[in-house]
Amino acid sequence: MFTVSVRDHFMIAHSFTGKVFGPAQKLHGATYVVDVEFRRVELDPDGIVVDIGRATDALRELLSALNFRNLDDEPAFRGRNTTTEFLAFVIHERMAAKIGAGDLGTYARGLASLRVTLHESHVAWAAYEAPLGR
Amino acid sequence: MFTVSVRDHFMIAHSFTGKVFGPAQKLHGATYVVDVEFRRVELDPDGIVVDIGRATDALRELLSALNFRNLDDEPAFRGRNTTTEFLAFVIHERMAAKIGAGDLGTYARGLASLRVTLHESHVAWAAYEAPLGR
Amino acid sequence: MFTVSVRDHFMIAHSFTGKVFGPAQKLHGATYVVDVEFRRVELDPDGIVVDIGRATDALRELLSALNFRNLDDEPAFRGRNTTTEFLAFVIHERMAAKIGAGDLGTYARGLASLRVTLHESHVAWAAYEAPLGR
Amino acid sequence: MFTVSVRDHFMIAHSFTGKVFGPAQKLHGATYVVDVEFRRVELDPDGIVVDIGRATDALRELLSALNFRNLDDEPAFRGRNTTTEFLAFVIHERMAAKIGAGDLGTYARGLASLRVTLHESHVAWAAYEAPLGR
Amino acid sequence: MFTVSVRDHFMIAHSFTGKVFGPAQKLHGATYVVDVEFRRVELDPDGIVVDIGRATDALRELLSALNFRNLDDEPAFRGRNTTTEFLAFVIHERMAAKIGAGDLGTYARGLASLRVTLHESHVAWAAYEAPLGR
Amino acid sequence: MFTVSVRDHFMIAHSFTGKVFGPAQKLHGATYVVDVEFRRVELDPDGIVVDIGRATDALRELLSALNFRNLDDEPAFRGRNTTTEFLAFVIHERMAAKIGAGDLGTYARGLASLRVTLHESHVAWAAYEAPLGR
Repeated sequence: MFTVSVRDHFMIAHSFTGKVFGPAQKLHGATYVVDVEFRRVELDPDGIVVDIGRATDALRELLSALNFRNLDDEPAFRGRNTTTEFLAFVIHERMAAKIGAGDLGTYARGLASLRVTLHESHVAWAAYEAPLGR
Repeated sequence: MFTVSVRDHFMIAHSFTGKVFGPAQKLHGATYVVDVEFRRVELDPDGIVVDIGRATDALRELLSALNFRNLDDEPAFRGRNTTTEFLAFVIHERMAAKIGAGDLGTYARGLASLRVTLHESHVAWAAYEAPLGR
Repeated sequence: MFTVSVRDHFMIAHSFTGKVFGPAQKLHGATYVVDVEFRRVELDPDGIVVDIGRATDALRELLSALNFRNLDDEPAFRGRNTTTEFLAFVIHERMAAKIGAGDLGTYARGLASLRVTLHESHVAWAAYEAPLGR
Repeated sequence: MFTVSVRDHFMIAHSFTGKVFGPAQKLHGATYVVDVEFRRVELDPDGIVVDIGRATDALRELLSALNFRNLDDEPAFRGRNTTTEFLAFVIHERMAAKIGAGDLGTYARGLASLRVTLHESHVAWAAYEAPLGR
Repeated sequence: MFTVSVRDHFMIAHSFTGKVFGPAQKLHGATYVVDVEFRRVELDPDGIVVDIGRATDALRELLSALNFRNLDDEPAFRGRNTTTEFLAFVIHERMAAKIGAGDLGTYARGLASLRVTLHESHVAWAAYEAPLGR
Repeated sequence: MFTVSVRDHFMIAHSFTGKVFGPAQKLHGATYVVDVEFRRVELDPDGIVVDIGRATDALRELLSALNFRNLDDEPAFRGRNTTTEFLAFVIHERMAAKIGAGDLGTYARGLASLRVTLHESHVAWAAYEAPLGR
C-alpha cells in the first residue's frame, strides 16, 4: 500500500455540550494541524499516489470553509459537538466528495482510502480513516 | 475507524541481558515519550472516542508506577529484558485492564483496540497494538 | 548562561480589531503550546536553574486562568488585541510576578531573565523575552 | 503486532517528467528523512522485534547508495520518476532483500512486514508498506 | 524583545567545491525548512510585531525565486558554495530588502533584527541573524 | 552571527541528592537528545561555520564517553548532581576542549561561541551557552 500525506491547519472557536467535557463546555478554541493521508494499492499512470499540488490546494480550500469561524454558529454542525474526532470525520467526508467530483484529477478516483488526523496540541490528536469509492 | 491519542512520558534506569544488546548490557536509562491511541468503529453516545481527561489521568497514573524507577529491581519484570517494544506491550496490557475495570468510563468498554508507542529518542521508537475486549 | 525550559498548552477563543487582521477579525480560536525558558548566569545552591517541578506547576496554574476562555470577555484584556506576541508578554509578566512572590522558591529570585514562546501552529510562533528582577 | 522503527536521512538531486509535476520538472533536490518500521507478531527469542543496531547499520548502508547523488543519472531508475512514494518502495524492496540475505540476523527472517516513510518537508511525506517473507 | 516567526520550505539541487565537503562535492540536493524570525523592541501601533499574512506572503515569494532550482546554475551564486549557512544569509538579505522596500507594511520598517534558520534534516540546521535598518 | 547545529543523543542512568529533586532522588534514567550550536561572526575561508562532518564525529565521540553509563559511578561527576543543565555545561566544556585541540579543524579555532541544548522529554529541556577561545 502506498501513502502520500499533506499538512495544513485551521483555527476555530467552539464549545461543547455535556458534563463529560468539563471546562471545555465554555466557549474556547483550537488550532488544528491537519494531515490528510491518501492511499492506493498501486501507483497511478503518472507514477504517483495523487497530484500533491492539487491535494494541497483541495485541503486549503476545504479548510478555508472552517478557518476563522465559531463552529457553534455553523448550521452544518447544529446539535453536534465539534470534537476533534468528529471534525476529522467531517474533513474526511468533504475530501472524499472532492475526490469523487474529480477535483484531484481523474486518477484520484482510484484512491483506496483516506486517513485524516487533527493535532490539537503537542499531547493530543484524533483521526478518522475509511475506505473510499463506494 | 476513529482514533484519539494522548501523550505523556516516564524516565527509567535498566540494563539488558544478551550479547545482542552490546553496550546496552550495562546499567543505563531512557526517557520514553508515550502515545496511547484509543480506537473505536463508531463514536460513543457522547460523540467521542474516549473521555480525553480520563484517558490522560489513567495514563499518568499508570506511568507513575514505572516513572523514576530502576526496572532491574521491579519484581514484575524479573527475568525479562525491559526493551522498548516489551514496555509498549506492558503499558498496553495495563491500560486494557484499566478500561476493563471501568476507569475510563462505561462507554470505554466499547473501544475496539489500543496502540501504544514509546519514543526512546529522535531516531527510534517501538509500538504494540492489539484488539481489546476479549 | 544556563537555561531550563518547560512546556504546557492552553486553548482559547478570541477575535481581533483592525483591518490588518483580515479574517481573524471574526471570532475564532487557537491552541497555544507554551515554552517558558528560565535563565541564570550560575546554577543555584541546589545545582539547578530552577525547581522544574515548581516551574511546571506554576505554568499550569498560570495557564489555567486563561485556558478554556473567550479572551474577548476577559476584563484584563479589554481594549487589547490578544495576539500571540501580546499573550507571550502577558505570560512573561505573570510568571515574573510568581517568581517575585517566591512561588518558585527562594533561589528562583536569582533568575536573570525569562523567555516565553507561544506556538500557534506548525508554521507560526511568537515570543517575548526580558530580564527579571528589577 | 509489535513495531520497531529507526530513522536516518539522505539528500539527492532529481527532476520529474510529466506535466502533472509542474515546476518539479526542473532539476531540483530533496532531503528525505526516512523511517523504517519493522513489524512482527511475536517478539523473537531475544525478546525484541529486530536488533536495532543492525537495523540502523543496514539503513545507513542502504541509504549511502542513494545519498549525495543525482538520481537522474542512476541506471537503476532510468525511465522512472523518482517520486517520494516510488523511493519509499525502492527502500522497502532493498531492506527486504537485506533481511532475506540475513544481514539483520537470522531471527529477522521472522519479520511480518515493513513500512518505509519518507518525509520530504514539514508538510508532506509518503510511505510504502507491504508484508515480507514470500 | 518581541519575536514573531513564520515557516515555509524550498527544494533545490546543488554541489560544493572544496575537499572539506567530501561526498557533497557531487551534485545532490536538499529540502530547506525555513524559519524567519522578526524582532522588535516594542509592538507596532497595531499591537503586533509584523503583519503575519504579509510576512508569510513575502517569504513564499522570496523562496519561489530559489525553489525547484539547480543553484549551481544561478548567476547570483556564481563562484560561491551555497551552503546552508550561506543560504540563510542570502534569505536574510533578501527579506531585509523587502522590509526596506515597504513590502511588509510601513510599520515593519521599525523591526530591530531578523534571524533566518534553515533546517536541512532532522539532525542539522544553520542560521544567520543580524540587526536591520541601517 | 552565523550558526550551524548538529544533533545526536545518549542514554544514561543516574540519581539526584537533595529534597528539591523529589522522586528523582531514586535511581532512574534519561534519553538526552543533544543539539550543539557552533557560532561565528564571519564564515571561515571554506565559506562555512564548521566542517559539519567533523562536528558530527566530534559530538558522537564525546557522547560515547557518557552513553550507556550509570553517571552515579563516574569519577568525573563525584559529588555532583548530573542534572540536565549541568550535563549541558559538561558537554560544552568538552566540545570547547576538542575545538581548542584542533579536532574540528584549524578554522574552528575562530568560532565565537557554543550553545549546548539537552532535550530530556517532549516538555522539558536545558541549555548552556558561553563564548569560546579565551
